[in-house]
Amino acid sequence: MSNQYGHFDDESREYVITRPDTPLPWLNYLGSDEMFGLCTNTAGGYTFWKDAKLRRLTRYRYNNVPMDLGGRYLYVNDGGVVWNPMWKPLKTALDRYECRHGLGYTKITGEKNGVEVEVLYFIVPGENVEIWRTRVTNKSGSKKDIQLFSYQEFCFFEALNDMTNYQRTYSIGEVEIEGSAIYHKTEFRERRSHYTLFACTRAIDGFDTSRDAFCGSVHHGLHEAQVPAKGKATNSKAFGWNPIGSHQVSLSLEPGASETMSFVLSYVDHGDLPKFKAPFVLNKQKGKEILAKYSAPGVVDGAFAQLKADWAGILSNFQADCPDEHARRMLNTWNQYQCMATFNLSRSASMYETGIGRGMGFRDSNQDLLGFVHLVPERARQRILDIAATQLSDGTCYHQYQPLTKKGNADIGGDFYDDHLWLILSTCAYIKETGDKGILKEPVGYADKPGSKEDLLHHLETSIAYTMKKRGPHGLPLIGHADWNDCLNLNCFSTEPNESFQTAGDVKDSKAESVMIAGLFLYASREMAGLYDWMGQKSDAARMREQYAEMLAVVEKEAWDGEWYRRAYDAESRPVGSKENEEGKIFIESQGWCVLGGAGADNGRAKQAMESVHKHLYTKNGIVLQQPAYSTYHLELGEVTSYPPGVKENAGIFCHNNTWIHLGWCLLGEGERALEYYLSICPSAKESQIETYRAEPYVYAQMIAGKDAPVFGEAKNAWLTGTAAWTFVSVSQGILGVQPQYDGLKLDPCVPKAWKSFSISRRFRGATYEISVKNSGVCKGVKKLTVDGKTVAGNVIPLSPAGSTVRVEIEMG
Amino acid sequence: MSNQYGHFDDESREYVITRPDTPLPWLNYLGSDEMFGLCTNTAGGYTFWKDAKLRRLTRYRYNNVPMDLGGRYLYVNDGGVVWNPMWKPLKTALDRYECRHGLGYTKITGEKNGVEVEVLYFIVPGENVEIWRTRVTNKSGSKKDIQLFSYQEFCFFEALNDMTNYQRTYSIGEVEIEGSAIYHKTEFRERRSHYTLFACTRAIDGFDTSRDAFCGSVHHGLHEAQVPAKGKATNSKAFGWNPIGSHQVSLSLEPGASETMSFVLSYVDHGDLPKFKAPFVLNKQKGKEILAKYSAPGVVDGAFAQLKADWAGILSNFQADCPDEHARRMLNTWNQYQCMATFNLSRSASMYETGIGRGMGFRDSNQDLLGFVHLVPERARQRILDIAATQLSDGTCYHQYQPLTKKGNADIGGDFYDDHLWLILSTCAYIKETGDKGILKEPVGYADKPGSKEDLLHHLETSIAYTMKKRGPHGLPLIGHADWNDCLNLNCFSTEPNESFQTAGDVKDSKAESVMIAGLFLYASREMAGLYDWMGQKSDAARMREQYAEMLAVVEKEAWDGEWYRRAYDAESRPVGSKENEEGKIFIESQGWCVLGGAGADNGRAKQAMESVHKHLYTKNGIVLQQPAYSTYHLELGEVTSYPPGVKENAGIFCHNNTWIHLGWCLLGEGERALEYYLSICPSAKESQIETYRAEPYVYAQMIAGKDAPVFGEAKNAWLTGTAAWTFVSVSQGILGVQPQYDGLKLDPCVPKAWKSFSISRRFRGATYEISVKNSGVCKGVKKLTVDGKTVAGNVIPLSPAGSTVRVEIEMG
Repeated sequence: MSNQYGHFDDESREYVITRPDTPLPWLNYLGSDEMFGLCTNTAGGYTFWKDAKLRRLTRYRYNNVPMDLGGRYLYVNDGGVVWNPMWKPLKTALDRYECRHGLGYTKITGEKNGVEVEVLYFIVPGENVEIWRTRVTNKSGSKKDIQLFSYQEFCFFEALNDMTNYQRTYSIGEVEIEGSAIYHKTEFRERRSHYTLFACTRAIDGFDTSRDAFCGSVHHGLHEAQVPAKGKATNSKAFGWNPIGSHQVSLSLEPGASETMSFVLSYVDHGDLPKFKAPFVLNKQKGKEILAKYSAPGVVDGAFAQLKADWAGILSNFQADCPDEHARRMLNTWNQYQCMATFNLSRSASMYETGIGRGMGFRDSNQDLLGFVHLVPERARQRILDIAATQLSDGTCYHQYQPLTKKGNADIGGDFYDDHLWLILSTCAYIKETGDKGILKEPVGYADKPGSKEDLLHHLETSIAYTMKKRGPHGLPLIGHADWNDCLNLNCFSTEPNESFQTAGDVKDSKAESVMIAGLFLYASREMAGLYDWMGQKSDAARMREQYAEMLAVVEKEAWDGEWYRRAYDAESRPVGSKENEEGKIFIESQGWCVLGGAGADNGRAKQAMESVHKHLYTKNGIVLQQPAYSTYHLELGEVTSYPPGVKENAGIFCHNNTWIHLGWCLLGEGERALEYYLSICPSAKESQIETYRAEPYVYAQMIAGKDAPVFGEAKNAWLTGTAAWTFVSVSQGILGVQPQYDGLKLDPCVPKAWKSFSISRRFRGATYEISVKNSGVCKGVKKLTVDGKTVAGNVIPLSPAGSTVRVEIEMG
Repeated sequence: MSNQYGHFDDESREYVITRPDTPLPWLNYLGSDEMFGLCTNTAGGYTFWKDAKLRRLTRYRYNNVPMDLGGRYLYVNDGGVVWNPMWKPLKTALDRYECRHGLGYTKITGEKNGVEVEVLYFIVPGENVEIWRTRVTNKSGSKKDIQLFSYQEFCFFEALNDMTNYQRTYSIGEVEIEGSAIYHKTEFRERRSHYTLFACTRAIDGFDTSRDAFCGSVHHGLHEAQVPAKGKATNSKAFGWNPIGSHQVSLSLEPGASETMSFVLSYVDHGDLPKFKAPFVLNKQKGKEILAKYSAPGVVDGAFAQLKADWAGILSNFQADCPDEHARRMLNTWNQYQCMATFNLSRSASMYETGIGRGMGFRDSNQDLLGFVHLVPERARQRILDIAATQLSDGTCYHQYQPLTKKGNADIGGDFYDDHLWLILSTCAYIKETGDKGILKEPVGYADKPGSKEDLLHHLETSIAYTMKKRGPHGLPLIGHADWNDCLNLNCFSTEPNESFQTAGDVKDSKAESVMIAGLFLYASREMAGLYDWMGQKSDAARMREQYAEMLAVVEKEAWDGEWYRRAYDAESRPVGSKENEEGKIFIESQGWCVLGGAGADNGRAKQAMESVHKHLYTKNGIVLQQPAYSTYHLELGEVTSYPPGVKENAGIFCHNNTWIHLGWCLLGEGERALEYYLSICPSAKESQIETYRAEPYVYAQMIAGKDAPVFGEAKNAWLTGTAAWTFVSVSQGILGVQPQYDGLKLDPCVPKAWKSFSISRRFRGATYEISVKNSGVCKGVKKLTVDGKTVAGNVIPLSPAGSTVRVEIEMG
């Protein structure tokens, strides 16, 4: 059974949606630099500059009824028949509807009664300009007189205030209209030196800036807006209440004729220019320049071509041709595209995250970098330094920071005792990708010591030292508020409904320990040892190995439960994730991280732990987080027990951590398992069960309902999830086995035996490696490596000069 | 020109709305105790328990499109014709629509094709139960088979989380259905010991608890909900996403027949009962008891009768018969009703305040008490003690506190240097009303000294001392973050768009001074002197009078500008509200408070200041806050200059402070002016210009757009405003002149000369005074007072025993 709502167009790198009434709104993102937009398949969503909380340009209502209402709308009035090419808000039946979500753009085409309207939405690379390129074509046999109306609602920049403080916001709205440009200048008179421009590249025949005037009254919805229904703008000028932007364009099209224009939405940084040219009259210089630029012939199309070219360039760093269609299309296009989104947005703004609650997460963004360092290394570099700057001198970190200010969020605070270790993973991944060890000497300082200039390496050492020092009764690392599993709160003891589980408890003198952090520490300290090896700092490397050995001994002594690794010890030193527990006997995270950290490698426990995952946690829709699901609230375990069984951390399929198990299977050489597990959470592979899965089939979801839930297999929270970066790692480095090293590119695939051949094109440190793999029927093992025809010992391709193209052949066997 | 949308029904104490498409949603409140509901004329709104932020039971989307969408809906399917008696969401044209907003209830009647549905919404006095009593009548000549559906959407209690954190909230929704009862039990498994019950007193024929199932999909709006359209519930059980409550009731009605049932929405406090009777099966004992109680014959009608009786009793404490229709109906019914709302809700939840940003305000609630002490004195007593407990030992106060926890809001903090003085006004008003000086000895303590037990009198002394001590270069009181005018921020110097103007500046070492606080201090210290006089503490009274005299001298020396009192001195000691300023030359607040505090009484300045108000600030729609309006942002003045000219504090008509001028005219004996000014902001008097005014004509608004605004006369923010309490004071004590004193009831009317007679019925300390006034053509002056036929010297009625009825006659002349 195929997906009745759409399909992949692999060649165009687009997902094509052919019915607007998808099971859930299917989202795409516009923008890759400083301005971003959310855009669903019916053009729902909003646009912001840098920070979805503090600089929101257009307004959106989450969880509305209909769920996705508000966005970048066009209304067509064709002889009294009124419709939207994007179906909503009117939902007039269309003769044809198509939405193409591409890389950084969405193109929606609607057709009715012989009129076709194609709208291409994108944000211009490197500029704060969103384009709605609109082409209206008369495909009928007779002349058409058409009234076209644009519509979007301005947001007053600070999103939370915008939606909670109407006793102020209803009184502050201000606009100006000049020519075809609408200037949204609320609060510009006071502390803002920016405004929002919404303009049309063509002369207009009317406008509206009052929402009530456009709709007809406070009682009219967008689906019954009176201006498009009547085919006549009112030229309203908003004063307070809710300013919107709407242009009227009257088109008279002969049969076969077509007209193209663009609507331009821009965040205009006014800088230090004089604010006004007369009392209450905005100095519009910058806005006019923008409109003039994009009104010139070819500029819009050129900008779009640039966007396409940019993406083609970025993706050419990694392309693979492997036998599995799902793995192939995800890896080559959508997974890398999603990695860009998580890099840019962390967990801030999606259909599930409102841009208000969360900024950039310390652990999130470090992990996101693992899937991003090969895309745009120089941006990764800056991000690493930004993140490190939110670490405190004792080793703990601000758990989140606002992208606009780059300052840690005091409300959420710190004391998540895994946070700092992830910085080691991202830094090492960046250096392996680039060879840029200079980053280690960059002065960063600590958030609690303004003006301090300790370098990045100091941060990494502080992180290692912190975990070694902050350990509990078993010698395992303390967990603090929580580790990666935000919901396992072993020190919170929360009894008060409205408090945060994460920040409720005082972690001072806390004793609860995390096996997962221990495994992560093994991984991180081994990474540090390798880094020092490469830099020739032997004693430092040895020091790291000592600490590794010490922690490994603790893990093997204190964390093994008999058939798997325990998850943690609670504040009373009772095991969590043990056969001793009634519920929550086995957790996924500690199996993943102990195995990836090298525990159980010599004593068979790694294999046994993984088999226990298979026996107790694996399902056809992925690996559930733990079993059995908790049926009641446990004060001593926190939020994990607050969810209904089968969702989120309470035995839901949390896709992010699935990838650690995929990597574990690769480590163990189990190529069949690795692919099978991967496909169990692969969205492309869910098209055949889309009515159950519901979410976007082109990007990974954070969570799929587990077997304990009545909706087993239903996905939630697509897009902004660590699954993106980690899946790129697990498939590109685990299954396909292309592993950047400090001194070369290691090849160590772990694939199904039936994969007879596959190939990878990888740009690495400026050289391009065209790798082809032949497999004589094994899962793992490289028996021969040839580089430009010459056999090389081992399985690491030596570095070639930047600019060169290198042919690489390997034989597995 | 009368109001085409509705009219007062004075006898029924109802406002009757006859067209649903009012210029703005016109709101009413349900509930007077612990459970409250907002209910518009199309049944929009939501319900909460105690705290609109922390215990919200039903969900509402502010500023939606249409603006007011979501509420307590009923859908009727009558042979395929689908409609709502409350018009929305479907907005099917009705044959008849009527909404009657009464005291604590709203009754909406819709009729179509011979079917009449009358819904009476109210909250049961003293219980956490909201009733939707529904009567369906077949007025047609033929039998009707009708499907009736209820609909409301559950909120997950914590309103901000509910609207911002979908990555959690979409996964936690849980319900149970048993019989005709829907139990919304989200988070009940963990830290909540309460749930929401939504039940029908009649057997039902189906139900829905999934919003998507009720609507049809995520793409369907409430106006196209499929369940009512198809006439068939789906018996959906929500798991995650958005739980709603909907019952289906199938009715078969012969011509003339009618059936009545109630939908019951309840906040059920589960207490310490066992939570579950089986795994995942709620212990429904309390919910069942509630439903059983209200299903019994007569109980709902009895509860409604009780509500009506309660209000009749409360209002009988003050009733007046005066020649002006507007003043009469506002004073006797709507103003007192609005005082109850402001007492209960402070500024937390209205159509403009979302229940999220603000809790109970220190200065707000103290002022609200001035209009409430005569309504339910024992509740006023507790409120005074609660408020006082949020004062700090240095005299400053938490500016706001959460009603659920009664703890000060640390986010907003304190240092608004007028806050503490209002506590003196509310306490004295309470003691004058009740004679209960025992309240002064109640141990309250200070918020920063847990366990402290200083009494209320100590707080009042601390307040006086604080203002005397914290004074600036001119000897005037320092202003801190702001005084009553939250937007006059003389120490903030805010340049950062997303920061609060109020809390931006550090007020330590600040020098800016407030003349308004000086005037308020005069008033408060004189009140303290009077209180001490009455208690026989002569030296304390004298001490207060010394401080009064000291401050008065400062005011007269430093605050007089030549024709009016200045408003303030800024941080650089430059005058604000002076002829020396280019804009903001004259402000309203300092004229009001200096005059009320007794400044200018002996030297003609009081009269001159009031005449300057008349000349520069008075308009037919009320007195604007200052003139000329600020045209640019002034860093040194703050938020006041951030508003467009003519709205809010930037020369809007801020009705609250208008009342101080009304009282000032009364003090000066200008009865014509007092009434004319009062009518300029009186909502009942706005019915003739309702298309301009737009807001509810039955309650005062916070703000009316001033003459500088293009929408001069448009009102905003009806309901939750200090205007309610202060207008009750200005009309009942100022114009009608009925002034509670410690030892009796003073009569000192100030009326238009043309008022030949009027009467007041006043319950005071348990006795009822039937007062009739004869006026021989003056504005002010009592020449004769007779009590039960006996002439009494002066104009104070001596106290009579509780339970007695006393006939009082006065002659003005």
